[in-house]
Amino acid sequence: MSPGNRPKVVICRDMGPDVMPLLMERTDLDVVLWPENRTCDRAWLMENLPGAVGVLGMFPSQVNSEIIEKAGPSLKVVSTMSVGYEHIDLPVLAKAGVRLGYTPDVLTDAVADLSVMLALMAGRNVGETLEVVKNSQWPKFTWSPFSFCGPQLSATERSPTRTVGFLGFGRIAQATLARLVPFGITHCLYTGNPSSQADPTLDQSLAEKFKLKGVRRVDNDTLARESDILFILAPGGPKTYHVVNEEFLKKMKKTSVLVNTSRGTLVDSNALAKALKEGWLWGAGLDVVEGEPNVTADHPLVKEPRCIVLPHIGSATLDTRVGMATLAVKNLLAGIAGETMGAELDLSRA
Amino acid sequence: MSPGNRPKVVICRDMGPDVMPLLMERTDLDVVLWPENRTCDRAWLMENLPGAVGVLGMFPSQVNSEIIEKAGPSLKVVSTMSVGYEHIDLPVLAKAGVRLGYTPDVLTDAVADLSVMLALMAGRNVGETLEVVKNSQWPKFTWSPFSFCGPQLSATERSPTRTVGFLGFGRIAQATLARLVPFGITHCLYTGNPSSQADPTLDQSLAEKFKLKGVRRVDNDTLARESDILFILAPGGPKTYHVVNEEFLKKMKKTSVLVNTSRGTLVDSNALAKALKEGWLWGAGLDVVEGEPNVTADHPLVKEPRCIVLPHIGSATLDTRVGMATLAVKNLLAGIAGETMGAELDLSRA
Repeated sequence: MSPGNRPKVVICRDMGPDVMPLLMERTDLDVVLWPENRTCDRAWLMENLPGAVGVLGMFPSQVNSEIIEKAGPSLKVVSTMSVGYEHIDLPVLAKAGVRLGYTPDVLTDAVADLSVMLALMAGRNVGETLEVVKNSQWPKFTWSPFSFCGPQLSATERSPTRTVGFLGFGRIAQATLARLVPFGITHCLYTGNPSSQADPTLDQSLAEKFKLKGVRRVDNDTLARESDILFILAPGGPKTYHVVNEEFLKKMKKTSVLVNTSRGTLVDSNALAKALKEGWLWGAGLDVVEGEPNVTADHPLVKEPRCIVLPHIGSATLDTRVGMATLAVKNLLAGIAGETMGAELDLSRA
Repeated sequence: MSPGNRPKVVICRDMGPDVMPLLMERTDLDVVLWPENRTCDRAWLMENLPGAVGVLGMFPSQVNSEIIEKAGPSLKVVSTMSVGYEHIDLPVLAKAGVRLGYTPDVLTDAVADLSVMLALMAGRNVGETLEVVKNSQWPKFTWSPFSFCGPQLSATERSPTRTVGFLGFGRIAQATLARLVPFGITHCLYTGNPSSQADPTLDQSLAEKFKLKGVRRVDNDTLARESDILFILAPGGPKTYHVVNEEFLKKMKKTSVLVNTSRGTLVDSNALAKALKEGWLWGAGLDVVEGEPNVTADHPLVKEPRCIVLPHIGSATLDTRVGMATLAVKNLLAGIAGETMGAELDLSRA
């Protein structure tokens, strides 16, 4: 059979030996694979799209009308190996009748792990203490009873309560909360979708589920004021743009830590740098920064000693990335076959 | 009353405004306090010891016969603000009838927090990823599906079991284990005191307590071979010297991480550096290193990108250090009064 007679799928990235056989064994498909170990060129993508039924990838830029039109009416499915879809023009896909597969859930545990790690690192002054060792200052360091001491994540006899706050309370937030319970967390605050109402019965059942003294849906002000550890775990986009700004940060406890493992746009970087410099809060742990990856050593947050900045590695574990890639391939194949996908975004209201 | 008539206590370090009033309000005592914000000079200590009933501190060097003899027969108690007592000559104290107060337990949670943090940091390649950001390499970084990917602490659908191992299974180990349970840990291995026997009934009750599929006391070989995450949490001293050596490290899983938050002497630094370089295990997180604080940037472990080295901050949180200092003062005062101490080391077999 000539390639022309087989349905064409365009794969923007090799996904490794654990995953690629799922595609390569499908001899009924014409699999067009970007051969290099980097994100595919847009020119290569445009050249190969015409006539494709499916396209899978980490995309080099916006998946917009230009791309959808280039593929033409044959296109049935776009499959993205990501939980976010800010890079995809949903109304364009909806109008063209193209289905969208994505990879939520499978990265929940990896991001929850990283969230707990960043909360610990921000409280324990790991930015400064790692430098002490790397800069050969350990031998000369004058020990004192309170050197490097910051707030303790675990509750203690002297301070037996801990309140954890979540801006956004989806799967990753709840997986993070579950991990924190044995550290002695006693109370949980969270913000809900403004279109819904607070539900004290739900909060009571959550408190029982997580064995906490209290769980409460609150407004952003209360969240900022009362949290000892505050996790930003809400979607990006215009509705949450800079929700953590100067006004928000000024309300936080001086001993609190802020963790952002969702999207950089939720936090005003300059405001956070100022807040850390002036001690409005204790420390911060960020896996995401607005404008990433264009974040360099002179970025105000990278320069702050009490700020940990990681290069967006929330889902970066072998297990999770293989899981994401596998789901993305299966979404693609299901979409082509007109079957139910493992994870499909509902575009009916896009 | 002249100072000479009041019992003298020598305090080697100011312990801050939360703690010092406990001493300073005791006008019945002659409190002699080292005035500087560093460990006291030995010369100052020797000058002030004669006639003291108690001495409290972080000590400038070995508490040995020279110190005990210098204080003279008036000395009733030595109080150390530490959980370890390797710096104190126990037989000398026992022979002189001097009691020893120390500060165990109160730092359990702080060290357990740090142990979990280091396990996460070692698995998630935080040494390398922090450098990517600090060295301005993030913008130029070629993303690939498996960049920075290491083992995931949390269990996943693809790999649903996780075995955590403890070399030493005291309070800190068990507090660490409790924190790891909601990460999806399924099995726990530990080494016990050679003078006692394995006890399957105890192991069964531990499995039920921690809600694990299995808890098993094992020998060092099995511990090295089967642990996904291995914590070193045993006392220092000659009996445990270099127990983690080349032979031990060669048996470890290539995807495993090693965490040491107890004493540096348990790990052969050169062997661990070689093991990391050659990939015998995935990564390591160390709060202690043999020969500390004389550990500089050219130390083989500080140079290893997969090794996180922190400058012994296990107990360094405000809550815990205030708790330790408070206990140390109370031990001192109880010892002087001939009362039961909050935490006294039994010297009867020293």
